[in-house]
This record gives sequence, C-alpha cells and structure tokens, in this order.
Amino acid sequence: MADPRFFTLAPPQTLAEIAGVTGVVLPPSVDGARQLVDVAALHTATAEHLSFFDNRKYLEAFRASQAGACFVRPGDAGNAPPGMVTLVTPEPYKAYALAAQAFYPEPLPTGRIHPAAVVAPSARIAAGTEIAAGAVIEDNADIGAACRIGANAVIGAHVRVGDHTVIGSNASLSHCEIGRHVVIYPGACIGQPGFGFAFNYDHPIRVPQLGRVIIEDYVEIGANSTVDRGAGPDTIIRQGAMIDNLVQIAHNVEIGRGVILAGQAGVSGSTRVGDYTLIGGKAGLTGHITIGKGARIAAASGVMRDVANGESVGGIPAIPLRDWLKQTALLNRLLRKTKS
Amino acid sequence: MADPRFFTLAPPQTLAEIAGVTGVVLPPSVDGARQLVDVAALHTATAEHLSFFDNRKYLEAFRASQAGACFVRPGDAGNAPPGMVTLVTPEPYKAYALAAQAFYPEPLPTGRIHPAAVVAPSARIAAGTEIAAGAVIEDNADIGAACRIGANAVIGAHVRVGDHTVIGSNASLSHCEIGRHVVIYPGACIGQPGFGFAFNYDHPIRVPQLGRVIIEDYVEIGANSTVDRGAGPDTIIRQGAMIDNLVQIAHNVEIGRGVILAGQAGVSGSTRVGDYTLIGGKAGLTGHITIGKGARIAAASGVMRDVANGESVGGIPAIPLRDWLKQTALLNRLLRKTKS
Amino acid sequence: MADPRFFTLAPPQTLAEIAGVTGVVLPPSVDGARQLVDVAALHTATAEHLSFFDNRKYLEAFRASQAGACFVRPGDAGNAPPGMVTLVTPEPYKAYALAAQAFYPEPLPTGRIHPAAVVAPSARIAAGTEIAAGAVIEDNADIGAACRIGANAVIGAHVRVGDHTVIGSNASLSHCEIGRHVVIYPGACIGQPGFGFAFNYDHPIRVPQLGRVIIEDYVEIGANSTVDRGAGPDTIIRQGAMIDNLVQIAHNVEIGRGVILAGQAGVSGSTRVGDYTLIGGKAGLTGHITIGKGARIAAASGVMRDVANGESVGGIPAIPLRDWLKQTALLNRLLRKTKS
Repeated sequence: MADPRFFTLAPPQTLAEIAGVTGVVLPPSVDGARQLVDVAALHTATAEHLSFFDNRKYLEAFRASQAGACFVRPGDAGNAPPGMVTLVTPEPYKAYALAAQAFYPEPLPTGRIHPAAVVAPSARIAAGTEIAAGAVIEDNADIGAACRIGANAVIGAHVRVGDHTVIGSNASLSHCEIGRHVVIYPGACIGQPGFGFAFNYDHPIRVPQLGRVIIEDYVEIGANSTVDRGAGPDTIIRQGAMIDNLVQIAHNVEIGRGVILAGQAGVSGSTRVGDYTLIGGKAGLTGHITIGKGARIAAASGVMRDVANGESVGGIPAIPLRDWLKQTALLNRLLRKTKS
Repeated sequence: MADPRFFTLAPPQTLAEIAGVTGVVLPPSVDGARQLVDVAALHTATAEHLSFFDNRKYLEAFRASQAGACFVRPGDAGNAPPGMVTLVTPEPYKAYALAAQAFYPEPLPTGRIHPAAVVAPSARIAAGTEIAAGAVIEDNADIGAACRIGANAVIGAHVRVGDHTVIGSNASLSHCEIGRHVVIYPGACIGQPGFGFAFNYDHPIRVPQLGRVIIEDYVEIGANSTVDRGAGPDTIIRQGAMIDNLVQIAHNVEIGRGVILAGQAGVSGSTRVGDYTLIGGKAGLTGHITIGKGARIAAASGVMRDVANGESVGGIPAIPLRDWLKQTALLNRLLRKTKS
Repeated sequence: MADPRFFTLAPPQTLAEIAGVTGVVLPPSVDGARQLVDVAALHTATAEHLSFFDNRKYLEAFRASQAGACFVRPGDAGNAPPGMVTLVTPEPYKAYALAAQAFYPEPLPTGRIHPAAVVAPSARIAAGTEIAAGAVIEDNADIGAACRIGANAVIGAHVRVGDHTVIGSNASLSHCEIGRHVVIYPGACIGQPGFGFAFNYDHPIRVPQLGRVIIEDYVEIGANSTVDRGAGPDTIIRQGAMIDNLVQIAHNVEIGRGVILAGQAGVSGSTRVGDYTLIGGKAGLTGHITIGKGARIAAASGVMRDVANGESVGGIPAIPLRDWLKQTALLNRLLRKTKS
C-alpha cells in the first residue's frame, strides 16, 4: 500500500466497478460484488489486491501470485493460479493504469486561491481552480476551470491555460497556449525566446523570437524541461505527447501526437517529429530534419538526417538500427582478431 | 504578423529609418519615405513587408517573393523579382535582426517594484529597474539601471547586476557578478558551489568553493542552464558568449568571447574555451583541457583532449572532424562487405 | 583570499588547531602555536598560507611553493622547499578540505523565518532553522533543526527534511523523505511522478506513481537535477552519494552509498547502482540493469547491460573500458591505412 501521507486510497472497489472503469467484461461465473482493497505487483499482491500480467518475462511471478484478481491477455488466463480471478483484456497494462487511477484518484483541485498567491487583477481564473502560495499570475493570463497551479509557478502575461491542467511548482510559462488536461512538471520553462542571433564581432545580435508555444491537450512536459517559443512560426507539441525530464525542445519544432521523448533527449530548431514516434533517453536530433510517423530513435543516438515513417535508427550519426547493431558486432570481431 | 497579445508591433517604418538602424545605404533610386509595416519570411511577405535572403538554399523563394523590400548580399540583387526593393549588405541576416528589433522593440522596463517583490533594505536598485512579483533580492545585492527581474527570481546577497540586464523568472543567482545587457533565462542557476569533495568512506568531504561567477556584458544564459562558481579561481563567461538551454558550466571554466554553446552541451571543471568557438548541442568537454579560438566542436561529440585554434573535431572521443566523417564512411563500407 | 563579500574568513588558525580538525599529527619540531591566516593553492600561497600537495603532476609547483605549511603524503615530505612545514597524511586533499572548512566555515542558520516565507500552520519547523523569503512550506511538512531553506523553495505536503539540511532557492520537493546534512542545490526537483503510462491512441493513460523518494544522510543533489518518485517501490539515494547538476534519476532507481554521478548523467527506471561507483559526465544508463559496487562508467558512455563489481566500461553501447580504448585505436589505424 502506498504511503498514506502522500497518497489517498479510495474505498474498496467491487469487481463490477473495476470492470466499469476499465471496459473489461466480467464472465458470468465471477461475483461482481466481490471487493478488492488495493492494487499491487504480482509478487506482493494478496487475495484482496488487483494486479496485472502483461510482460511474459514475469510468467513465473504470475503463476505464483496470490493476487485476488489480475488483468491478463486472452492467451494467458490458462496459466493463472487456482482461485485468481482473471480479467481478460488485450491491454492489461492499460487496464491496470485505469484501475490504479480509481484506487488512487488524483485529489480534486480545492478551488482555493491561496492568499499568498499573486494574481493580476486583469487575469481570469475559471471556477474550481486551485492556486498555491507564491504562484504569480500575470496580466491578462487566462486560466481554465479545475486547474492546479503549484507554489511559486509563474504564468506570464496573456498565457492561456485550458481546463483540468496542472502546472508544477517553480515552473515558468510565457508566450504560450496550453490545452486541457496538460501536466507541466515542476521547474519546466515554456515559452522563452529561442536561440537565434546573427554573428557580430562585439556581441551577437539577437533576432526577435516572434512565435509562441502551442501545447495541445493531454500533453505532459517533464521536470526542468525547456520548450522555446518559435522564431516566427510557433513551436507545437501535439495531443498526448509525453516529454520526460530535462528535455530540450528548440524553436519552431513540431512534436506529433503521442510522441514519447525520454529523459535528456533534445530536438534542435525547426525539426518535425511524426506522430507516435519513440525517442530514447539522451537522443539528440539536429535541426531542420523530418522524422516520420511511428519511427524509433534509440537512446543516446544522434540523428543528423531525415528518418522515414516506421524506421528504427541508432548510433552517432544515426543509421538504421539493424546496421548499427551489426556495426557494433563487427567492431567486436575486429577487436578479438587484433587481440589474438 | 506576430500574435499581438504577446508582441507589440511598432508603427510603420520608412526605408530611410530601416537603413538608419541597419547601416544599409539606400541607392538614390529608392524612395526613402516608403513605409513598411512588418517583417516576414520570404514566402509569406507581401508588398508591405521587409524580408531577407541570406542562405542561397532559399533562392527560389527569393525569386518568387512578394516582399516589398529585402536585405540581400551584393551578388544576389540581380535575382530579385521585379518591384522588390533590394537593400544590399554583406550581412543580410544581421541587418534583418536589427530591423526586426526596430519593428518589435523589447518593452522598456516599467521601473516598478511590485509590492509582492521582497527587496532587502540593504539592497540597491538603480533607476528604471522593474522587479516582478515574488522576486527576492537579498542583502546588499546591487542591481543596475533599467533591468528587468522576473517573477520569483532570486538574487542572492552581494550579487551585482549591471545595467539593462534581464533576469528570467525562477532564476537563482548567488556569488556572482553579472555585466550589462546580459540575459539570464528562466530557471537558470548561477553561482552555486562547484562539484568538489575529497573521498571519505562515510561520506565525501566537501571542499569549500571559494570563487565566484563572472559574467561579462551581452552574455546570454539559457533556460535551466547551470553555471557553478569557482573552487578558488572564478568561473568566467566572456563578453557576448551565447549559452543555450540546459547547458552545464562547471567550476573554474573560462568561456571566451562570442562562444556559442548549443543546448545540453557541458563543460567540465577548469576547461578553457577560446573566443568565437562553436560548440554543438549535447557536446561534452572533459575537465582541464584547452579549446583554441575559433574551433568547432560537432554536436554530440565528447572532447577528451586539447583542441587547436580553428580546429574542427567530432566523435567520442573527438578526433579531427574530417577523420570522424571518414571513419563513419569506412564503417559503413565494412558493414556492406560483411553483408554481401 | 576569497571575495569577502561572499565568503567570511575565520580568524587565524594555529597549526595545533589545524592538526586537530584534520587528524594530522604534528611532529615535535613544529611550533603548534604558529598561526596561518588562509588556505591557498601551491603557486599563490605565501608564508601565512596553508596548502596541499596530492597530485604528483604538481611536483614542480610544490618544490617552488612559498606556502607556510602544506599537507603532503608520507613519501613527499622530502621534496618540500626549505622552511615549509609539512603536515604528513595519507590523504592530503581530504585534510585540505577539512582545514578549508575551518578557515571558511559555512554560516550558521540564523533560525529566522522570513516574514515573506509561507509556512502552513500544520507544518513543523524545528529549532534553529532558517527559512528565506518566498519559501513555501506546505501542510504537515516536517523540517528538522538547523536547516536552511532557500528563497522561493517549495517543500510539499508531508515531506520530511532531516537536521542540518540545506535546500537551495527555487528547489521543488514533494513525496520525499530527506535525511540529515543533505544539500539540495537550487532548482532541483525531487519527488514528482515518474515517467509511466500505458499506450492509448487518443493520449497515453498515466499509471499512478505511488512510491516516494528516499534520500539518506549527507547526499548532495546538484542544481536543476531531477529525481522522480517511485512507481510503487521508492526511488532511493543512499548515504553520501554525490549528484552533480542536470542529472536525471528516474523512478525506482537505487543509487548506492558514496556513488558519484557527474553532470548531465542519467539513470533510467529501476536501475540499481552499487556503492562507490563512479559515473562520468553525460553517461546514460538504460533501465532495469544492475551496476556493481566500485564500478567506473566513462563519461559520455551509454550503458545497456549489467556491469560487474569493479568493472570499468566505456562507449556506446558500453564495453569494457580497455576494449573501448583498443577499438578507438583500431579505428584510427584502419583510417590511416585507408588514407595511404
């Protein structure tokens, strides 16, 4: 069970309620009124717990699990230990995520504006939004309903934030429009000028950065990540993109729907990343290139050219992933020859 | 045209005024009283817009552009479409930058100290400086004239900030002296102790970090970048150096004049980087090395040795750039042989 | 001498006092009442200064040094210049660190809670703790004695902070327990949710992150570094681990005792790093692997597999360090052949 100081466990849920939030169909033989009290991993779950089995690497843990109920793929129910209720779904991890959200619902925003928050008189704050101490909401900012604005966050002038969005403590927003159900983690910086200037001997001449950052619904931006505003066009993060911590997104970049960017990755100016592409940790993308839809960029790679739809690449400079793996093997063979 | 909520467009500018701020000489045939209303890219500009043509990759866009006037290099004026006023300069991008600053001037600091800022009684704030809500100016800090200090920024005790400098929201400064016309972006941390300690079994013993950070005029430090103070000597960033987001500068480092450090680059302790050197994104420099003047460090490279004046290097460990490119080609050839 | 605006030099110390704090034994011939006024590097020290000689690379500087007294290894005392008092110890750098702490003691917390700090009525603040302006201490947070909480730092609800711990300005803490004598640098983010979600076409489904961050005594976390809380288990940083700036620690990671993580390194989810392992700058560790005790991970490497106790690795993907160095040499030889 999660530390009750930090997480509030909901009352027990019946199997029928769990089926309701996850879309799983209970077989007639299962008692929908049976209650479970918590979620747990396969190896720690007891008869009162709900678990999931998705990665077949954990087959032994599944066979030995004491969990009262478990989300499983269709083909795996036959391996369940006796007495376990199997909740069959093609996406056990997704069902688990939804059930865990039911057991540990996010606290609702209190709707309280802390007296030590600083809200400009011209700012608009919709109903139900909670603003913590020290947060600064500048002139004409427009915050939607049921948002949570963390302590010491800064929402710059004219910024728009959609309903149900969460802004972490010490985050800094300016020159941006943020959608609904977005999460900006603590310390993230969104909307500052991009890195653009003309050479000059005494000191570079800054080129005014006249675009914005547009963040669509359901996006998440990790802790201390940075998203620069466009130079002229906007920087755009499309619906459902997930950006981890310490990621850099430069000016004019467009990140497609559902893209995953792992920690410390970086995307240089004017590069476009297609929908549902996966970018590993510490990967770097040079500027002015196009990454296709559904591509995969290996961790720690450096991509210096376009990547096709569905292509997998790795290495610095990045080449087809298969070739990179062969190259690595080839180097190891050469090395062994040299030794002998 | 830029979003008017975020950017304020100046009144129309005459060609004579534009010539004045950029140093371009208008030929006698041009009507200096003709007004333009905005800057725009070649492909979106209309007859009322000012554009620029610098990179010959965009020659077709230049030939087809509807821009009323355009900065061009001397040899390119002949390719201009009929009716376009060509403003000839050896540095079109720099001229564009200066003109764009005239169309979209930075707002002047208001000179207002927000009542929710916290300014120590012993701090000195010169005339015209604007301090946003939640900013904390600690004992004996000394802030110059016409500065802007962002919301929730922290200026530590005894820190000096020169005139016309901008400190972003949620930035943290201590143990440093900052020059004039400097821009520190949101979330940057300047002046914390460097990473220095002696091994000890129970826990390392911290070595007091007794230097400062010195930042000269016209430097920019990107969002969430970090600059540690020196261990004994100072950490120094010389005039006009441009540091992008999420860059790490360790203790005792010296960054030369006009150096460009792209996003997520890092410089380890006591390394010196010569004037006007370019360092690509995610490049890492090990400690106690010297990088010459005008060197070029490729993105994603790892530099483990000195680099000569004007030398270009790439790879991990970094080697001459030409060799790195050949190595990459050689590996690809070996791979193709192995396949066949 | 360090800039007196930023650093307070203690009164002169006698050799007997210096011996006392460092554990060095003064030989009978040395006058324990002799006073020194400051620490200094070998080449800048004068007769009133204390220095150290640890790295034999500086032998000439040692022979030529004017320092009044110097920590040296047992075998090096014979090379001391005439008149220098040699303080013999197997660990000169550690002795220097302790002596420097005596000359430049950290200022004691004032015990003052600034009137512009925001402390929830339910929070507990032990005696002697100093809280700067703009810091926000949320409900039921529990701060130990003699701590310093920086300006605009945010300590989330129910967070526990041990005695003598320092939290930097603009740092954000939630869902964590912090030990004694810990230093969290400015801008660091500790305890936000890890990067966990299930694929879903419209937008990923977040998996509740139900663990905490546990930081043991004497740990340091660098500026703008990020430590995510666990998904179910906790994220743990063990005693004396030193984490530099802009480092990412993902959920469920365990960092062992005395581990050193240099700047911009990153550790992916559920990876375990054994005690006293050294991880170079920009190194990346993939998820779900185990790094042994006393291992060494070269800077800029990408570790994709387990690493044994005491093993040294480098490269992307990381291989034994010796092999990586040979591979680099082999590639250079191949390149030279191709050229000729």
